[in-house]
Amino acid sequence: MLRCAFFLMCLLHLKHTILGAVTPKPILINGTYINPELGNYHARLRSIARSCLEIKEKHDGTQDGMYILTTASGTYYQAFCDMNTAGGGWTLVASVHENNIKGKCSVGDRWSSQQGNALNLPEGDGAWANTATFGSAESSTSDDYKNPGYYDISAQDVSVWHIPNDEQLRNWTSSAILRYHTESQFLKEHGGNLYHLFKKYPVRFGAGHCKSDTGAVSPVVYDKGDKDSTAKLYGPSKDFEPGFITFRVFNDDQAAMALCSGVKPTACNPQHYCIGGGYFPQLQQCGDFTGLDLSGTASKQLTESSVLLFYR
Amino acid sequence: MLRCAFFLMCLLHLKHTILGAVTPKPILINGTYINPELGNYHARLRSIARSCLEIKEKHDGTQDGMYILTTASGTYYQAFCDMNTAGGGWTLVASVHENNIKGKCSVGDRWSSQQGNALNLPEGDGAWANTATFGSAESSTSDDYKNPGYYDISAQDVSVWHIPNDEQLRNWTSSAILRYHTESQFLKEHGGNLYHLFKKYPVRFGAGHCKSDTGAVSPVVYDKGDKDSTAKLYGPSKDFEPGFITFRVFNDDQAAMALCSGVKPTACNPQHYCIGGGYFPQLQQCGDFTGLDLSGTASKQLTESSVLLFYR
Amino acid sequence: MLRCAFFLMCLLHLKHTILGAVTPKPILINGTYINPELGNYHARLRSIARSCLEIKEKHDGTQDGMYILTTASGTYYQAFCDMNTAGGGWTLVASVHENNIKGKCSVGDRWSSQQGNALNLPEGDGAWANTATFGSAESSTSDDYKNPGYYDISAQDVSVWHIPNDEQLRNWTSSAILRYHTESQFLKEHGGNLYHLFKKYPVRFGAGHCKSDTGAVSPVVYDKGDKDSTAKLYGPSKDFEPGFITFRVFNDDQAAMALCSGVKPTACNPQHYCIGGGYFPQLQQCGDFTGLDLSGTASKQLTESSVLLFYR
Repeated sequence: MLRCAFFLMCLLHLKHTILGAVTPKPILINGTYINPELGNYHARLRSIARSCLEIKEKHDGTQDGMYILTTASGTYYQAFCDMNTAGGGWTLVASVHENNIKGKCSVGDRWSSQQGNALNLPEGDGAWANTATFGSAESSTSDDYKNPGYYDISAQDVSVWHIPNDEQLRNWTSSAILRYHTESQFLKEHGGNLYHLFKKYPVRFGAGHCKSDTGAVSPVVYDKGDKDSTAKLYGPSKDFEPGFITFRVFNDDQAAMALCSGVKPTACNPQHYCIGGGYFPQLQQCGDFTGLDLSGTASKQLTESSVLLFYR
Repeated sequence: MLRCAFFLMCLLHLKHTILGAVTPKPILINGTYINPELGNYHARLRSIARSCLEIKEKHDGTQDGMYILTTASGTYYQAFCDMNTAGGGWTLVASVHENNIKGKCSVGDRWSSQQGNALNLPEGDGAWANTATFGSAESSTSDDYKNPGYYDISAQDVSVWHIPNDEQLRNWTSSAILRYHTESQFLKEHGGNLYHLFKKYPVRFGAGHCKSDTGAVSPVVYDKGDKDSTAKLYGPSKDFEPGFITFRVFNDDQAAMALCSGVKPTACNPQHYCIGGGYFPQLQQCGDFTGLDLSGTASKQLTESSVLLFYR
Repeated sequence: MLRCAFFLMCLLHLKHTILGAVTPKPILINGTYINPELGNYHARLRSIARSCLEIKEKHDGTQDGMYILTTASGTYYQAFCDMNTAGGGWTLVASVHENNIKGKCSVGDRWSSQQGNALNLPEGDGAWANTATFGSAESSTSDDYKNPGYYDISAQDVSVWHIPNDEQLRNWTSSAILRYHTESQFLKEHGGNLYHLFKKYPVRFGAGHCKSDTGAVSPVVYDKGDKDSTAKLYGPSKDFEPGFITFRVFNDDQAAMALCSGVKPTACNPQHYCIGGGYFPQLQQCGDFTGLDLSGTASKQLTESSVLLFYR
């Protein structure tokens, strides 16, 4: 009788009944996790949400690190959240990593084409505007990365971190060579994320012309570095203006590029400072980092860094 | 004394002891989840099972969507369940997506070969009969997909959805160009899934001859479209009979193909309406969608759709 | 009043309040899981840890199989644990699988290069010393595999299983052609895992010379097979001594290889019995299994088996 009348007894019974294989086993002793790692896992799980911003706002997430997200369709995935920059709530959704700057649309060029430079694929592999996903957050400086948040999260702004290749997650903040974000809320006009933006402005050869058909552009606010260091990293070219992020541009050949990260083109040679793309009439421009290695433009520091893309 | 004697007090104590980092934190208020997304996650977890059919039968799963499955060996993975077609209980285990119909056994041809057309690899990459997995459910119209259910689930029938490339999961049902399933329970005779069927009938160049060595064939019941629309989608050829699904066939060159989805070959040129394969004596037939683009046979609508494979 | 005063009543209330969508639903009946698979999952989750050794030591894990691990940064992943060999506690972190021994640094050669034999990539794809991950435990005999444990776990010894390609997990122990492990704790001197070892001793063309620049070597203790069977599997060459595992060696051309698994080179032609690597001056040596197929050295039994790497 009254076996559960006293709090401690309740607790003891519970410990033997809540979790376990067929018959549950205790997970707590004196109200504390027997296995602290399980406690950490449950803490992450409690804040499960559609984006890091939601975790920040609804669940008081304040620490940078890995969290658990869900898509509208109920796919669960892990993502890195930046909870501090300019108020926090930034979800890492993608990275562009150049594994072989001499490999022109070769294996590993997931943001342009892994099929070689194929005229029958004017959008290349099409990753900017499809739901293919690849890589992982902890690998995002060693390999291309794209998670479901890229197409699922509804956002207003982007943040970009340029991190030296192969740097481990715990060192990202200290080793970044550039960090900046938009505050213009430009994504609101373009469907709330880059997936929708690039549906509207396809990264497709021949779909437009230099200057007249740029997709979107926004000024950025710097979190590390500034306009001068941006200009230096991209090299001696005077064909861009630093302090912006630009989406979907064309060069003189009508080749499309997805992202000019940190700059706004002022000339028709964006292959020297913009990345991603589809088919290029000039083979040596094809690849995740297009022609950043040609004509001695961009610095090695920049071309050997990954471009990490966040949404908020 | 009696601190847990009243129900509400029990509950309050529980909230402070069940979950959390080291010291647990509440997940419920008044018997309702503080974070509804955690409630959704727990609901999915409660029905964890070996297949969607088991979720349907044992755990009353009635909604289409993502669920959590486990293999016999204890690997957990997420899968899409069709809980409505012909009684429901269908697990999406794979998709065949042609990323470049002109790329002959190039990167992305995981259901044939990513090694070019290699005579020393008569089975190509061998994905039809090994445990390699790739892609994800939400990406299955943008990339090849194969989850552990392909080799782990014990099933009787298959269902196939032909979905336009890059279509998002929420639109699959409405945008399908063809949907059909078997009711013959043909998989019972072949080890319970395609992994075992293809161990028995290898997709290997030279392992058999046209007509005499077909692996398995079953009539299908249509859920969208019919025999006429199937015949139209595959084009003007009269070399097949619609209303069937056929596994492991050979052409005149002894090249093997894995799947004739919607049709049964009546001639020895299955490369115009069957998919997947190993080595092909004729290079232009090599690839996930073999020679569906040659000689103006299959429609663009068909070749630009992914083939989604379900088990039940 | 006193609605929770009796144990069974407490339990009933709990079942209706602990888990569920928005409003929780019961997961237990009479202290037993309604869904035994959920019980199995919770059992795995209770022992969540940084490595299989920790699961063995802190959570009494005694059965071989899949467990849930976490990295220092909080990324959760599933891994296979060998809980029995020589005391158990071994985490499977990687496998080297040769998908096409004639494909020289082609797609699928993730432990050498998927870029062809590229002089501008002296380390090839660099997987031995970066955080890229790929594959899964259950696929590790059908595809290359590398999980976050490779760079995250702090270990002292390695264990190696040579398993015939495409063998399913449940048959690994019985079908292994060779199994052995170190007891020298050699990893302690090299940063605690292979990621750090290969940062110290890069697998890079030109970074050293045969004989003078070997990275690390340790004797092994056999769990299946012996020195004689090792020598037979690697073939008639007398240029190695069996009963060892050796890391980062060079050949006469200054080409680097990562792993001589089961042997210690005594000559400068390790491409016949060592695997992994970067750029090779001789093209036919490039690939995950380098030149094991050349000059009739290694047996087919060996070259058609995957090399599974464990830490403890």
